[in-house]
Amino acid sequence: MPSDSVAAPLLALGERAKSASRVLASSSTAQRNAALLAAAEGLDSCRDELLAANGEDLARATAEGADGTSLDRLRLDAKRVASMAQGLRNVAALADPVGEVADGWVRPNGLAVRRTRVPLGVVGIIYENRPNVTSDAGGLCLKSGNAVMLRGSSSAISSNLVVARVLREGLASAGLPADAVALVEDTSRASAVAFMQLEGIIDCLIPRGGPSLIASIAEHATVPYVLDGAGNCHVYVDASADLDMAEAIVVNAKTQRPGVCNAAETLLVHEAVADAFLPRLAVSLAEVALVADERSHPMLLAAGHGNLSPADDEAFATEFLGLTLAVGVVDDLGSAIDHIARYSSGHSEAIVTSDVAAADRFVKEVDAAAVLVNASTRFIDGEELGLGAEIGISTQKLHARGPMGLTQLTTLKWIVTGNGQVRT
Amino acid sequence: MPSDSVAAPLLALGERAKSASRVLASSSTAQRNAALLAAAEGLDSCRDELLAANGEDLARATAEGADGTSLDRLRLDAKRVASMAQGLRNVAALADPVGEVADGWVRPNGLAVRRTRVPLGVVGIIYENRPNVTSDAGGLCLKSGNAVMLRGSSSAISSNLVVARVLREGLASAGLPADAVALVEDTSRASAVAFMQLEGIIDCLIPRGGPSLIASIAEHATVPYVLDGAGNCHVYVDASADLDMAEAIVVNAKTQRPGVCNAAETLLVHEAVADAFLPRLAVSLAEVALVADERSHPMLLAAGHGNLSPADDEAFATEFLGLTLAVGVVDDLGSAIDHIARYSSGHSEAIVTSDVAAADRFVKEVDAAAVLVNASTRFIDGEELGLGAEIGISTQKLHARGPMGLTQLTTLKWIVTGNGQVRT
Repeated sequence: MPSDSVAAPLLALGERAKSASRVLASSSTAQRNAALLAAAEGLDSCRDELLAANGEDLARATAEGADGTSLDRLRLDAKRVASMAQGLRNVAALADPVGEVADGWVRPNGLAVRRTRVPLGVVGIIYENRPNVTSDAGGLCLKSGNAVMLRGSSSAISSNLVVARVLREGLASAGLPADAVALVEDTSRASAVAFMQLEGIIDCLIPRGGPSLIASIAEHATVPYVLDGAGNCHVYVDASADLDMAEAIVVNAKTQRPGVCNAAETLLVHEAVADAFLPRLAVSLAEVALVADERSHPMLLAAGHGNLSPADDEAFATEFLGLTLAVGVVDDLGSAIDHIARYSSGHSEAIVTSDVAAADRFVKEVDAAAVLVNASTRFIDGEELGLGAEIGISTQKLHARGPMGLTQLTTLKWIVTGNGQVRT
Repeated sequence: MPSDSVAAPLLALGERAKSASRVLASSSTAQRNAALLAAAEGLDSCRDELLAANGEDLARATAEGADGTSLDRLRLDAKRVASMAQGLRNVAALADPVGEVADGWVRPNGLAVRRTRVPLGVVGIIYENRPNVTSDAGGLCLKSGNAVMLRGSSSAISSNLVVARVLREGLASAGLPADAVALVEDTSRASAVAFMQLEGIIDCLIPRGGPSLIASIAEHATVPYVLDGAGNCHVYVDASADLDMAEAIVVNAKTQRPGVCNAAETLLVHEAVADAFLPRLAVSLAEVALVADERSHPMLLAAGHGNLSPADDEAFATEFLGLTLAVGVVDDLGSAIDHIARYSSGHSEAIVTSDVAAADRFVKEVDAAAVLVNASTRFIDGEELGLGAEIGISTQKLHARGPMGLTQLTTLKWIVTGNGQVRT
C-alpha cells in the first residue's frame, strides 16, 4: 500500500482528470480533432525545446549506464518528432467511434433500446522509456473522448513533460480542459503501484512495456486493465501447402522484425512435406538459430544448417524475440493444433495450406486472438489490419482481443426511451 | 495462497473442463441445444430426487440457524424445478451467438479480415445458495459454447450435485463431454479463493452474490472477471415532466421489487415542480420510509408523510434494497446530473421529462451502464430488454456493461485470410 504522501497527489491529479473526462465525453469530434491538430503543430514548433529536454534524459540515462537498446528507445531526433506530430494528425483523421449506435431495437411494450459507444472515462497508460508513447497513446485516448493519465518512466521524464504540456496546450486552444491530459511527475516505484490502484479514477489501465511491467500489473493493479501480452506465435506448414508460399511466409514471420510480439517463434511442419520443406529453410534461414525437435534436427543438419540445437519443452514455450526459431515436425493437422494449444500465448497463429477443410479446422480449433491462413503473422497489427492506429494488442479474451484501436477505448451505454412504461 | 491439497483437485477438475471446452467450441448449435433439452427433461424426471436432496440442504441450513430469507433462496419446490427446466428450454430456443461474423473487410493487399464470435472457453461461476443458478448459469454457458465451472455454497451442495449431474448427463446424451460442466464439491472458503486463482483455466469469472462475495473477488481473484455490481439508481423528475407519468415511474421503480439492483434508491425533483409533485408522492409512497434533504423534508412533512428522516451524504450513497427512498430537490438538470455523478454506482439512471433537449443532455452526460428516459429503472434486465436471458448485470465498463446475455459470454477471434501475403 503506497503511503499517503505518494497517493494523495496522484489522487488529486486523477480527480482533475476525472472531472475533465466528463467534459471530453460531451465534446464534439471537431473540438477533439482541433485539439489534436493544435498539439501536432505544437510538437513541430517546440521541436528544439523537446530535443533539448530529450538530451537531458539521454545524458542522465547514459550517466546511469543505460544500454544501447534502451538509449535508442529513449532517443528523439527531428525525424522522430515529426513522426509523433504526424501520428497525431493521422489520429485526427480517423473516424470517431463515440456516439456510434452499436445496435438497437424496439420492445413489444414500445421501449426503444439502443446501445451507443461512449468513452471509457479516464484511461491510464503506464509505460517504459519511449517518449513517443506519450503523444501516440495520449492522442488515441483524446480522440476517443477519454481523459488520459500518463505514467512514463523516470528516464524519459524531461521529454514527457514537454510532450504532455503540448497536448494540454492543444486541448486548451480547442476550448477543452487541459486536465484531460495528466502526466504523473513522480516516477518512483511507489507511485507506479499507487497509479495501478487509483480505484474510482482509472476506468481502464493499459500497460505498454515488457514482462516485468505486466507482472507488476497482475500483482498490484486493483483498477480494471487490458494487457498487451506476449506473442509465442506459430506457423504451421500443412501437407498441402504451396512450399514457395510457405517459405516466404516463414522467412517473413521470423526475420522481418524479430523483436516484436507478432514475429513467429515456432515452425511446425507436417511430416509429409518435412523432407521437401526443411532443407529449403535450412538455406533461407541460414542466419537464424534453429532449435529443432528430434525429427527435424537430422533433416536440418543434413541440409547443412550451421546453427542447430535440440528443442525441449522450454524452447517451444519461449518467445525468443530474436533470430531464433523452434522447429518441430508433426504427424498431422490435429497434432499441430494440439501443440499450439499447449504452447501458444494466444496471440497470432498461422497455417499455410491449400486445403480449405484444413484451413477451416485450424481457424475453428486454434484458440488465439488472431488466426491467419496463408499470410505472415506480422500482419496482426492495428495499422496493417486497417484500424488506423493501435494502442496495443490484447491477448486476453475480455473487452478487447487482438489489435486495439479507437473502438476498444470506448464502452457501450444502454439508452432506453419510453413514454411512461412501468414494469408489471 | 490456498494449500496444494485444496488447489490440486480444483486444478485437475479445471483441466478436464478446459479440455472439454475445446470440444464445446467446435460443437454445433444443434448438439448444444440437444444437451440443454435433455437436461431439461432430466430435471423434470428426477424432480423427486432433487427435492429430496434439497430437503437435506434445508434441514442442514435450518440446523445451522439460517434465517427465513436464506432458507427461501435455498428452497426448491415442484414449481421452481419446473421453472429451472423451462429456463433451459428457453435458452435452447435463443439464437446462438457463436460463429457470428461481427465485422469484416478486405485490405488493399488482398487480405480478408473477419472478426468472429467464439466462446470464452471456461466460465467460472461463484454463487451463493440459490440452486437454480446451477442450471440457469450452466445453461447459458453451454449454449454459448463454453465449459462451466460451478462453485456454489456449502448450504446448497446436495441440490447442486443433482443439478450438475443432470447437466452432465444432458451433455453426454448429446455426444458432448460431460466434463464441460464441473461442480466444485469442496465448498470450503480456501477452495473459493483457489477457484478465483485458477489462472490459465478460468477465462472469465462471474460472481453471483452480495457485497461480501464481490469484495472477496476484488481481493483474491487473479483470473479475469466481470462484476455484477450494486445499483444505487436514481429517478430524476425534470421541470417539464408529466407528473402522472413521473409518479407512476417513481412508485414502480421503488416498490415493484425493492430488493433488486435495478430498483430506485434516490428520487431527485426539479425545484420548479417539487411543490406540486412531492405532496402526491407523500401519499403514493405512504408505505415507504423517505429520507429527505432539507428542501424536500418540509414539503413531505406538510403533506402528512408519516415516516420521514433527514438525508445526509451517507443516505444518498446507500443502496437500501428495501422500502426506503432518499429524496432531494435540485436547482436544475445540471445539479441532478452532478448529484448522480457523485453518488451513482453506474447501474441505471432515469429521467422523466417532456423536454427533448433535457433528455438528450441527461442521456449524454450521465455515466452509467443504462440511462432511461420516461421509463422505470426496473426495465434494466436482460429479459426485459430482449436478451432472452441474462447471466448478470455489469456495472463495469470493460467487456460487458449492463445486462449480460449470451453474446457477453463470447469473445472475438480475428481471422485473416490471404494468398501468400508477407509484410514489407
